[in-house]
Amino acid sequence: MKRVSVFRKEHFNAAHRLHNENLSDAENAALFGRCNYPNYHGHNYDLIVQVTGEIDPVSGYVMDMKVLSDLIKEKVTEEFDHRNLNLDIEEFRTLIPTAENIAIVIYDRLRPHIDNSKDLKIRLYETERNYVEYPA
Amino acid sequence: MKRVSVFRKEHFNAAHRLHNENLSDAENAALFGRCNYPNYHGHNYDLIVQVTGEIDPVSGYVMDMKVLSDLIKEKVTEEFDHRNLNLDIEEFRTLIPTAENIAIVIYDRLRPHIDNSKDLKIRLYETERNYVEYPA
Amino acid sequence: MKRVSVFRKEHFNAAHRLHNENLSDAENAALFGRCNYPNYHGHNYDLIVQVTGEIDPVSGYVMDMKVLSDLIKEKVTEEFDHRNLNLDIEEFRTLIPTAENIAIVIYDRLRPHIDNSKDLKIRLYETERNYVEYPA
Amino acid sequence: MKRVSVFRKEHFNAAHRLHNENLSDAENAALFGRCNYPNYHGHNYDLIVQVTGEIDPVSGYVMDMKVLSDLIKEKVTEEFDHRNLNLDIEEFRTLIPTAENIAIVIYDRLRPHIDNSKDLKIRLYETERNYVEYPA
Amino acid sequence: MKRVSVFRKEHFNAAHRLHNENLSDAENAALFGRCNYPNYHGHNYDLIVQVTGEIDPVSGYVMDMKVLSDLIKEKVTEEFDHRNLNLDIEEFRTLIPTAENIAIVIYDRLRPHIDNSKDLKIRLYETERNYVEYPA
Amino acid sequence: MKRVSVFRKEHFNAAHRLHNENLSDAENAALFGRCNYPNYHGHNYDLIVQVTGEIDPVSGYVMDMKVLSDLIKEKVTEEFDHRNLNLDIEEFRTLIPTAENIAIVIYDRLRPHIDNSKDLKIRLYETERNYVEYPA
Repeated sequence: MKRVSVFRKEHFNAAHRLHNENLSDAENAALFGRCNYPNYHGHNYDLIVQVTGEIDPVSGYVMDMKVLSDLIKEKVTEEFDHRNLNLDIEEFRTLIPTAENIAIVIYDRLRPHIDNSKDLKIRLYETERNYVEYPA
Repeated sequence: MKRVSVFRKEHFNAAHRLHNENLSDAENAALFGRCNYPNYHGHNYDLIVQVTGEIDPVSGYVMDMKVLSDLIKEKVTEEFDHRNLNLDIEEFRTLIPTAENIAIVIYDRLRPHIDNSKDLKIRLYETERNYVEYPA
Repeated sequence: MKRVSVFRKEHFNAAHRLHNENLSDAENAALFGRCNYPNYHGHNYDLIVQVTGEIDPVSGYVMDMKVLSDLIKEKVTEEFDHRNLNLDIEEFRTLIPTAENIAIVIYDRLRPHIDNSKDLKIRLYETERNYVEYPA
Repeated sequence: MKRVSVFRKEHFNAAHRLHNENLSDAENAALFGRCNYPNYHGHNYDLIVQVTGEIDPVSGYVMDMKVLSDLIKEKVTEEFDHRNLNLDIEEFRTLIPTAENIAIVIYDRLRPHIDNSKDLKIRLYETERNYVEYPA
Repeated sequence: MKRVSVFRKEHFNAAHRLHNENLSDAENAALFGRCNYPNYHGHNYDLIVQVTGEIDPVSGYVMDMKVLSDLIKEKVTEEFDHRNLNLDIEEFRTLIPTAENIAIVIYDRLRPHIDNSKDLKIRLYETERNYVEYPA
Repeated sequence: MKRVSVFRKEHFNAAHRLHNENLSDAENAALFGRCNYPNYHGHNYDLIVQVTGEIDPVSGYVMDMKVLSDLIKEKVTEEFDHRNLNLDIEEFRTLIPTAENIAIVIYDRLRPHIDNSKDLKIRLYETERNYVEYPA
């Protein structure tokens, strides 16, 4: 059967800080540089969610983009947008909010709500010049 | 042998409407929402054609981008550009012109004209935020 | 007093066709070329609304971008989006929907709802390579 | 004499929060919505600095872009980047860091260091869809 | 009468080098840095031509974008594209090809061919981060 | 183990010319068209380096983007930027500097400096509309 990937781009604006609580302040500063500054900084995150599967012959869709967009909003962006990832999002109380880890958290939030016959991939832009993809 | 992918971006502007003739008007409206409005709407479609193969040592090319661009124009964009996909393009008389199906139609038009030793992939942007890729 | 411009970008997808009812079919084809094709084509229109005025010292805003965004949606994009400009939008029953004329129509719809102390300017992208600004 | 504008684009990533200390919490929430969330959010700010003047016949430049870039870095982005605008930047201890006010602060920091024969204008993108320009 | 600006984006790829023949090699290196390297470097130049005038009531156009695009190609990009500006373009035998000077040369080439009732402005991107506008 | 891809975007501006020394001038002109013009042309090359591997639990990084950026600068862009690829870069004395070949050269320069447990992929944009990826 023909499999097609569909991609939906969403975004959220959030503050974060990279800091490992098991390291000293000096070690954190050496490891994370400016990203460790104490009062947080922030980004306009662009999020691209890719779903791969077969085309439904009734709709001509792999997945209704409106349904996918609503799912991303409900499970991710409504909660992340205009928030401090370290302080406001539960997963990052024990996980450093690097782009890599944010992408995995988003994947884990969306995966249970997308049919098992479909593959899911997350691309997350922290800036125009730094981005990540999971799973690789 | 080293295989490289080359990508060529083209575009076309077209009108379309999503409508399944086997469904009632109410079912079509429920399924497709605004995309089912009767008088058509349209998009600036961005089309990226990816060809993967070995480098020709004489030219240093996988494929001459000018040849690829001319092929895309001849087989796809000259015919699709400034047209109504539902009314003017033969394949969509019996196929709903979703981004998924448009990508497959473009693949099927180009595949016979690209050497069998090379792989072909189509990425089609319907908007900046909605796009598809075939084959997945 | 210090005057600042604020810009808000919105978008809509629509079909249109350029056709002057006072000209013959041959004259229309010669004047408008592909844009005159009978079954309509379409675009992803990007709309940038610029409002210029003094900063309100209470909010630090020239104008609340949320209020501006909601106004644009209510007066323009909710009505234009996924529509056929020629057939569905009243102003274009007697006006050719060129980018120039669409920009003026949008200006005329928004101007009464923005305080007279503020200036208004419309930029409309028909494609990435063709856009207009009104007033000049 | 012929006057030309030159534009240099720089960027910085920062956290901020919109909050007027003279208003109650409920008034702040009503006025600023999500932008008032207590733990800050953030943006990838794109900054475009426009300098207008005559061309120096020796260099063919209005202003050396390297000099302009270094000036922006020294006076603005080195200090703003990866910082919390409300907590870390002196001007915003008494001024709400809206895009409008950030643009004015940047203008005031750069103006003394650019020759008086030249005009200066600041464009600041808070997001791709919200930006400001000062002076208007 | 209502005046509208129309913008057309074209591009060309060219090599150039910044070098003032009246200065010593050391002075050129100090003034122009990397842009003075002897064997040339190059850019993808993006050119935006802005024409401002009244709308023709027959066409709804300020100026036919196809006519404007053809004019830019004939007078500028066909000649500049894939060329070495210093060696191949007559104006730059005696003029340093900075972005400022290239914009003025393009203006001077187009101005005689655009109706005097219309205003003309050139924006030239040398890179995404460095661009110029003439007249200011 | 979970594998994530991280991407870093850098750029360089360079001149080049496509010319095969084993062909006649007429053959070169026929094969390469404008890209064979004798005095070189140039591009703003955008380079995206993708590194795929497991997340280091101490940093939350697959690879420190600052380290990756510095590596790309040291091994590639500091040497390529503002240079003539044919005349100034050793690899292209015997290799035609097509986008395909430039991508392979960049891969070969970076591969020895990235841990063997990690995968490396290069995407190189010659223009917005022509780009390549290696390995495919």
